[in-house]
Amino acid sequence: MTIALPSQIRIVEVGPRDGLQNEAGVVALDTKLALIEALVEAGLRSVEAGSFVSPKWVPQMADTAAVLARLRRAPGVSYPVLVPNMQGFEAACAAQVEEIAVFGAASESFSRRNINCSIAESLERFRPVAAAAIARGMRVRGYVSCVLGCPYEGRVEPAAVAAVADALHEMGCYEISLGDTIGIGTPRQAQAMLATVAERVPIERLALHFHDTYGQALANILACLELGVAVIDSAVAGLGGCPYAKGATGNVATEDVVYMLNGMGIETGVDLARLATAGRMISAALGRPPVSKVAQVLARQVA
Amino acid sequence: MTIALPSQIRIVEVGPRDGLQNEAGVVALDTKLALIEALVEAGLRSVEAGSFVSPKWVPQMADTAAVLARLRRAPGVSYPVLVPNMQGFEAACAAQVEEIAVFGAASESFSRRNINCSIAESLERFRPVAAAAIARGMRVRGYVSCVLGCPYEGRVEPAAVAAVADALHEMGCYEISLGDTIGIGTPRQAQAMLATVAERVPIERLALHFHDTYGQALANILACLELGVAVIDSAVAGLGGCPYAKGATGNVATEDVVYMLNGMGIETGVDLARLATAGRMISAALGRPPVSKVAQVLARQVA
Repeated sequence: MTIALPSQIRIVEVGPRDGLQNEAGVVALDTKLALIEALVEAGLRSVEAGSFVSPKWVPQMADTAAVLARLRRAPGVSYPVLVPNMQGFEAACAAQVEEIAVFGAASESFSRRNINCSIAESLERFRPVAAAAIARGMRVRGYVSCVLGCPYEGRVEPAAVAAVADALHEMGCYEISLGDTIGIGTPRQAQAMLATVAERVPIERLALHFHDTYGQALANILACLELGVAVIDSAVAGLGGCPYAKGATGNVATEDVVYMLNGMGIETGVDLARLATAGRMISAALGRPPVSKVAQVLARQVA
Repeated sequence: MTIALPSQIRIVEVGPRDGLQNEAGVVALDTKLALIEALVEAGLRSVEAGSFVSPKWVPQMADTAAVLARLRRAPGVSYPVLVPNMQGFEAACAAQVEEIAVFGAASESFSRRNINCSIAESLERFRPVAAAAIARGMRVRGYVSCVLGCPYEGRVEPAAVAAVADALHEMGCYEISLGDTIGIGTPRQAQAMLATVAERVPIERLALHFHDTYGQALANILACLELGVAVIDSAVAGLGGCPYAKGATGNVATEDVVYMLNGMGIETGVDLARLATAGRMISAALGRPPVSKVAQVLARQVA
């Protein structure tokens, strides 16, 4: 017996933001622009373009305003930008951003270390940002991190994830992306978490954002597809951490996700060969091979 | 809705044979012995110990007789050895082997290139070997390669896999291991293949032998667990191919499999920390990091 899977999946490409912000090296503005445009050329329709956070904490995103000023925006493509507070929101408005994202955590310790406030405080901070954005006609996406575990607290209860997801949904986020930030989860746990969240937020409003730290991301995604989720965040070339570096927690590679979905007859609209070309370009800029087995096979075929 | 999975999985560790025979370097006899013994110490109860094939074709296995002569065999542990023909069988008898394995392919082209005969000829060759082994009280395991694709023919029909598996089962193999030799399959395809084979051979007699070339192995295993298969072949440290080498087709890493199964509450009897220690030892001998994300995380924790 098998369970029916969605026939179509929307992929949210997070490589230029979540990926690059976790790379040791800072990529040149022209390279970033070339990457985003190559990803759109490959068929991606949601490509995170940057983050209006303090350049002191995230120097890799310091050029977000410049990226948005120079980016040739394609029709029908969304370029979401992370915004932590009203100051970031104003920068997003100035940059004529059409979609922003706010990011909370399901773990108190992670929230304090990552954004320097409690979960409740972060939600209070996001609420006026979301309201102002929606009033201007922007779309707002919400992130919840640490949904399958926290580097400081260990286990995270599905109910804690559901509470944050529900709050983000209530404040108007059109989609809530559930992040296994440290890539520690396994398939049954991922299903249990998703099922609990889906009791409070419709599954059509949920996305998966899994990191591949322990190599479990595709299996976890497959398990969650069985529950009907149809949006997946991933990063071309598995950007976000070198496999041999301490604390590496790269996103699941878009190439690996697309390969699996293609093989199951699930439409993504993404051209795998073009995607892999974009991944080789950014990997070369970072001076290392792509962290994606599919990308590595394809690289050998064109070598 | 979720599907019940087996509560217990038997892992067949193939690193010392399928893994090492596909590594460029030849490992010293003492290192091989230390590896096999460390794997048994980690709780594995089936550890492939070698292969009685021509040293001209597989120099990495030329010391199989010496391995078996020196190996301290633990009670309750099986040390299967590959045997292609009666000559190999006699060597296995001389080495007091208790379990042998014969290996066929589901693709004619692969059979001809790999063992230099047609599928039908290979089965005729295995039949007297299996009969003689069973008459001596040995157990015989059967392998079918290319079950999800062939490097020469591309697509392989599930019915072709089922026919070979059935023939091996009919000649007395207690278990048939289904190999995605080039690691090209995806979850739905793996399920469809397994379901077709299970129409002819009871699922209790089937094992999965997946390579992780395209990073799909864990997802494919998860999909097949849903059909009730409860035996998985894997190789510590993902032995069997360097990730950056042309044609790399390493086995799925035992560490990654055990991590996933542990996380789902499925018993394997394997101690992950000890397993990872064995993996670091053999990886160091080969001069490269383990090809396993779990192993890489664990290595950073002990570093």
